[in-house]
Amino acid sequence: MYPDIYGQLITSLATANDKRIVLLVADGLGDCPGPAGVTALQAARKPNLDALAGRGACGLLTPVATGVTPGSGPGHLGLFGYDPLVYQVGRGVLSALGIEFPLTSRDVAARLNFCTVDQAGNVADRRAGRIPDEENRRLLAKIKAALKAPAGLEVFFETEAEHRAVLVLRGEGLDDHIGETDPQKTGVPPLAADREGYAGRTAKMVADIVEQVRRILADEPKANMILARGFAKVPKWPTFAERYKLDPAAVAGYPMYRGVARLVGIPVVSRPTTAADVCAEAAKASRDHTFVFAHFKYTDKMGEDGNHPGKVQRIEELDAALPALLAAKPDVLIVTGDHSTPSVMKSHSWHPVPVLMAGPFFRGGQAPRFDELSCRGGEIGAIPSRELLPLAMAHAGKLEKFGA
Amino acid sequence: MYPDIYGQLITSLATANDKRIVLLVADGLGDCPGPAGVTALQAARKPNLDALAGRGACGLLTPVATGVTPGSGPGHLGLFGYDPLVYQVGRGVLSALGIEFPLTSRDVAARLNFCTVDQAGNVADRRAGRIPDEENRRLLAKIKAALKAPAGLEVFFETEAEHRAVLVLRGEGLDDHIGETDPQKTGVPPLAADREGYAGRTAKMVADIVEQVRRILADEPKANMILARGFAKVPKWPTFAERYKLDPAAVAGYPMYRGVARLVGIPVVSRPTTAADVCAEAAKASRDHTFVFAHFKYTDKMGEDGNHPGKVQRIEELDAALPALLAAKPDVLIVTGDHSTPSVMKSHSWHPVPVLMAGPFFRGGQAPRFDELSCRGGEIGAIPSRELLPLAMAHAGKLEKFGA
Repeated sequence: MYPDIYGQLITSLATANDKRIVLLVADGLGDCPGPAGVTALQAARKPNLDALAGRGACGLLTPVATGVTPGSGPGHLGLFGYDPLVYQVGRGVLSALGIEFPLTSRDVAARLNFCTVDQAGNVADRRAGRIPDEENRRLLAKIKAALKAPAGLEVFFETEAEHRAVLVLRGEGLDDHIGETDPQKTGVPPLAADREGYAGRTAKMVADIVEQVRRILADEPKANMILARGFAKVPKWPTFAERYKLDPAAVAGYPMYRGVARLVGIPVVSRPTTAADVCAEAAKASRDHTFVFAHFKYTDKMGEDGNHPGKVQRIEELDAALPALLAAKPDVLIVTGDHSTPSVMKSHSWHPVPVLMAGPFFRGGQAPRFDELSCRGGEIGAIPSRELLPLAMAHAGKLEKFGA
Repeated sequence: MYPDIYGQLITSLATANDKRIVLLVADGLGDCPGPAGVTALQAARKPNLDALAGRGACGLLTPVATGVTPGSGPGHLGLFGYDPLVYQVGRGVLSALGIEFPLTSRDVAARLNFCTVDQAGNVADRRAGRIPDEENRRLLAKIKAALKAPAGLEVFFETEAEHRAVLVLRGEGLDDHIGETDPQKTGVPPLAADREGYAGRTAKMVADIVEQVRRILADEPKANMILARGFAKVPKWPTFAERYKLDPAAVAGYPMYRGVARLVGIPVVSRPTTAADVCAEAAKASRDHTFVFAHFKYTDKMGEDGNHPGKVQRIEELDAALPALLAAKPDVLIVTGDHSTPSVMKSHSWHPVPVLMAGPFFRGGQAPRFDELSCRGGEIGAIPSRELLPLAMAHAGKLEKFGA
């Protein structure tokens, strides 16, 4: 991976003071025009956000790179100033974060699918007919009851949802160089975790576990096998506090976002979900921390559901809740998203994300409203998400001069 | 050379579907204001392009880097998503492409100049008075008739134009570490191809050939010697199809552009030159290919000639021809140039190039006309040319999500 030149520069300039930065993330905030030809941000009545846009600075964030649609992990890492292309997380770790499994540095995590294999042992359905969550839990209980863990190894199986689960191996000296067993197609057998090129001790233990699971599930009609992929260890990254000399806190109601915060060492201090609670808890946390990451999920959820009016409504709720956060008088307040989730696409997208920053030293003007089109003309311009936090630190007086 | 991180990312995310992307390149499209204070794009009556700009997305492309004027090779490689600073082609290969010489992986190509040396053997005129093409051809015939090729080597001499020619060596195990013989000044002798630092077998063979040519041309009054530079082999790059999972086709009437297309493995399916034919052939090709590169030369030609009204007229021709292409309903249509060729400069320039993209998921607005000034406010913003194709792939649903 390429060197993190910008991040290292920011770390070398970072200096502590008591100014407080709040990053309010409305998940999947960016949009494309809906049925009425306007985006959710354009349609929403949001006097507080528009007032902030008018006197602060606006812009557009590119989460990863032009044309690239980010998952939630990379989207947030960018907002935390960690270049998502430098700081890549294995899928297994992201899945474990998503269910808030308390990973340690001794763990290797993988994403599991229950699947169906035919009598010849070939994969017939990679998702085992998308079994319900309860069935997933029943099967994992059956596996746990019968499995003999290889010597020196703790093995965890956790339900994610439907056919999806998480496998975590815990032990000394494990490595994550393990073959993915998912062949990514049907009509062929699962691959061996310890096939040629994957001769390590951990790969052999995984192969043993998979074989045991095959026998344990052999009498199941549907979900009679598992496929594993994305074996990964928790990455060893500089923590948020080390990187920026900030004292951070996370306020987030959904496991995935708490997980990503913890991945960079941001402790979770509160778990609100509604707009009112998110803003109130962020305000509270900002009294004791120089950086608060506050996460609001429902804008993304409405986008994923293709619910344009719902997304408008969630934005209006957030706007209405904002005065509680403003009352705490953060020195620098950022409102943005981790990516766009246009309701016309019902999915994450690559479109740049509107951002606004309120603070003491802005030039102002040119972005009188907080939406996708207005932000294009704003003071911040179009920048990668990873540059946002350093910009906020500059406004908070937390970056020293570079060079004499 | 630095690693192609963005390109590798895009390759890792690329996924095939049947959506069709058409890239229509009006060569040298970008301009500076002419005598009447407006650019050719501003002066042209072009209702179709303006309508596309109004409902699609506009922006400005930087072909290589700020301030850098691209040749046709780098200009097009950027549009194909190959970073021109990573994917550098030797001048010899570009010259061979320019005359559509069918290079193979066993070849080393070089650019030749006929020159004049005085009785002391010093270069007196590096271009031999810019001899006419016929004279060039006569001299090459004379060389070919008399030259004894070194053992195991095939030697090709091909006329480019005036004093310019192409040398191609074909054989097993050739290398391109050969000294340039052009001293780049007069009053000194040509350099030896096998001088210190260039001791390889191929360099010795080139030195032998150059010495033979010196003797063959000794009785010529003007073009009595050759200078060789830019020795290069065909680069081994991932093909366009490998890189993007696209099924590409090129529609181009001029050899250089067919050559650059072939360099990245894009097959040439048609050779139209007029605007009407380019658009009609692009439409036809788009029925069978998920990516069509269509090239229109004359905008550049008018710019090179300093013919501002001519450039306006060529743009109007292209606009009038556009409906034939639109009728084929490409899923994503891009119109742009490989670089700017301002008629006031009579040459390529570094100025960013206007671009428009029409497709399904745009935010729209703010660039109501397709010209250098209006595009500045457009949705795409200012991006490097190499990011254009990935953006089009995103709009065509051809890029998977990055990270979970």
